[in-house]
Amino acid sequence: MNIPRSSYPRIVIIGGGFGGISLAKKLAHKEVQVVLLDKHNYHTFQPLLYQVSTGGLEPDSIAYPIRKVLKDYPNFFFRLAEVFQIHPEKKSVVTNIGTLHYDYLVLATGSETNYFGNSEIEKNGMSMKSIPESLNLRSLILENFEQALLTDDLHERDALMNFVIVGGGPTGVELAGALAEIKKGILPKDYPDLDTRRAQINLVQSNGRILKEMSEEASSKAEDFLEKLGVQIWKNTRVTGYDGKLATTATELTFETATLIWAAGVKGALVQGLDAKDLLSGGRIRVNEFNQVEAWPNIFAIGDVACLVSEKYPRGHPMMAQPAIQQGRSLGENLIRLIEDKPMKPFSYWDKGSMATVGRNKAVVDLPKFKFQGVFAWFVWMFVHLFFLIGFRNRMVVFVNWVYNYVRFDREARLIIRPFNKDYSAFKD
Amino acid sequence: MNIPRSSYPRIVIIGGGFGGISLAKKLAHKEVQVVLLDKHNYHTFQPLLYQVSTGGLEPDSIAYPIRKVLKDYPNFFFRLAEVFQIHPEKKSVVTNIGTLHYDYLVLATGSETNYFGNSEIEKNGMSMKSIPESLNLRSLILENFEQALLTDDLHERDALMNFVIVGGGPTGVELAGALAEIKKGILPKDYPDLDTRRAQINLVQSNGRILKEMSEEASSKAEDFLEKLGVQIWKNTRVTGYDGKLATTATELTFETATLIWAAGVKGALVQGLDAKDLLSGGRIRVNEFNQVEAWPNIFAIGDVACLVSEKYPRGHPMMAQPAIQQGRSLGENLIRLIEDKPMKPFSYWDKGSMATVGRNKAVVDLPKFKFQGVFAWFVWMFVHLFFLIGFRNRMVVFVNWVYNYVRFDREARLIIRPFNKDYSAFKD
Repeated sequence: MNIPRSSYPRIVIIGGGFGGISLAKKLAHKEVQVVLLDKHNYHTFQPLLYQVSTGGLEPDSIAYPIRKVLKDYPNFFFRLAEVFQIHPEKKSVVTNIGTLHYDYLVLATGSETNYFGNSEIEKNGMSMKSIPESLNLRSLILENFEQALLTDDLHERDALMNFVIVGGGPTGVELAGALAEIKKGILPKDYPDLDTRRAQINLVQSNGRILKEMSEEASSKAEDFLEKLGVQIWKNTRVTGYDGKLATTATELTFETATLIWAAGVKGALVQGLDAKDLLSGGRIRVNEFNQVEAWPNIFAIGDVACLVSEKYPRGHPMMAQPAIQQGRSLGENLIRLIEDKPMKPFSYWDKGSMATVGRNKAVVDLPKFKFQGVFAWFVWMFVHLFFLIGFRNRMVVFVNWVYNYVRFDREARLIIRPFNKDYSAFKD
Repeated sequence: MNIPRSSYPRIVIIGGGFGGISLAKKLAHKEVQVVLLDKHNYHTFQPLLYQVSTGGLEPDSIAYPIRKVLKDYPNFFFRLAEVFQIHPEKKSVVTNIGTLHYDYLVLATGSETNYFGNSEIEKNGMSMKSIPESLNLRSLILENFEQALLTDDLHERDALMNFVIVGGGPTGVELAGALAEIKKGILPKDYPDLDTRRAQINLVQSNGRILKEMSEEASSKAEDFLEKLGVQIWKNTRVTGYDGKLATTATELTFETATLIWAAGVKGALVQGLDAKDLLSGGRIRVNEFNQVEAWPNIFAIGDVACLVSEKYPRGHPMMAQPAIQQGRSLGENLIRLIEDKPMKPFSYWDKGSMATVGRNKAVVDLPKFKFQGVFAWFVWMFVHLFFLIGFRNRMVVFVNWVYNYVRFDREARLIIRPFNKDYSAFKD
């Protein structure tokens, strides 16, 4: 890969997500050369992917060109590349566009959908971890209703209008809420010649609680919200298979559905090349308090793919934006200290709390000090997400859309721009 | 196709473009049943496609869900369908979702790219007649520059940064201007490690004038604008072939280019089933002053696909939005008159003039009364396009983007959301 040589040490960052970007910004104008690799040329604001899938937002407004983030920093290089392998002993990274030598390597590859080895669900289910996947899901949802219009088989029609969301985490809850609002607000207008009241939204949770990472109050309130919206919640139910038509569970319960959305788990997006002993369950990389891989002092991991075990977080930090952002900043400082032969500072996570939205005027917020739910929580949720969104234009466009959607009970970005295609490889990334 | 029977006569409209939509609106709340067929579930505002290709606008903001247009009208039905054939004698339309009987049929299928039989250019060149095609072109342009970074072969690098636009009509001129602004404003920032000054934008016109449908002033002013922006204009040059690497012309002139955009012609998007005698050159349907196909009094054609020969327009009306919109309205009235056994009114075209934009503060406007160019023309162009854009949200989002792009000299929607894929059938529609 033709990156110019530099007298400065070269830091290679794999991944332009929350972690990689915050790290890069921290390294700005320092005496280092930074090479950022990503398989997309844009940063994705993952918390709003579900709004792309459900027509609330344009994909372009939650993505941001990575080159634009780096453009003000000399000595920064971006390459659109897929990383195949790392060679720690050779200090090199092998990609589809060539091999690259590094002095320091940072793995910020994030996470990917975890099907827990169920290849049938992986093949027939939908996931929503990237913009292409979200657009594919949007197409499928819209095409299902067009299809429902055409069939006289009531069975088939119900299956086309039956949505099964597996996983009661924030993604599942937010998606279920959005689909319920579409059923209520848009389908009757869009499909007057279809009995859209028969549309079903099912949220399936393997254990006894949705939003189980959040407080009891948040969980129970979110349940109320969802039930008010007409979402059927199935707790203590584990989905065991899906052949594209029928979803089976550990009990006798089954769902005839044309759309199963798998939001039941994520795992670290590992890169080949590390020893098993550096890895932990869930495809995460074991790092010390400096986000450093023990075996290789010049290799680091941050964000979802990193697992920093501590007393307070025996299973590592939650796989969310905040730990990634904070680890990126911390590592940025530490890399400079390392290069300057100063002792590194251990990472400490500042838990700012967590939140989830169910629908208009309905959100739940857990702050370290206090918890609240409802309208105010919903406005807080919107403000926080607008604030963390990268780019002034994105904020403006998202704001315009949200105001419009709120006032008009509408979601206009419901276009089948590409026909749904489950096998189209570009979607699966 | 399961459209409910109705005591009202059934009007089937093929195509949800400017013509089909304006006709449908005119038929609202009349005693007719309207079935609108389109292969997309959205209306495309074609005049702004070039801004999608060049990252200035999100695709969603120039498209509008057709169902949303029709939702307020009882007795209106939309079906997402591709029409294969019409059977005038049987009064039926054959589509991929079944056969449909009509009492009145309106062909509003618009136009498609005309390669004049050159299958090599059709295979290797890019066209820009739909949103998927525009997004595909956007991906190609962006990927070319990423690719240019990777090669050490100066020849190849130049070819990757060399854009050849064939056709000096509004589309070609507007695209050339937009690419020139990207070269000037964005590439140097995005690709500091690439000599983007070597990027070339070539506009090739077969005859002696660009914008030849417009006034001499408009043409020459547009030329000045383009040349100021660094676009190379090749007049009286006919492109004869393109193998994906080398574009040949009728002279010795050749272009080594990875991107040839064909904007040199359109033809009517014909549907199988009419007799040759009802057709004219350029794939257009001969209609009388009532937009009626002589041979079949209950079949009509409007917009680009229709050719209404008159003294003033011996070759039919220009293939633009205005004639389509006006013909749609006129036909709406005439269909009602026809059903009520009243005499139809001949269509007369009100030429509101035409305009084209070259870049920021640079546009040319020909009005029937007077002509002007420059900053004011550019603001008029923007105002008119915002005005004709369907949907309040679209107007808002486009406005926000334009203001942002103007103030920041930027175009942020430059994401490779789908990898470029010339053979991906969904793009070619």
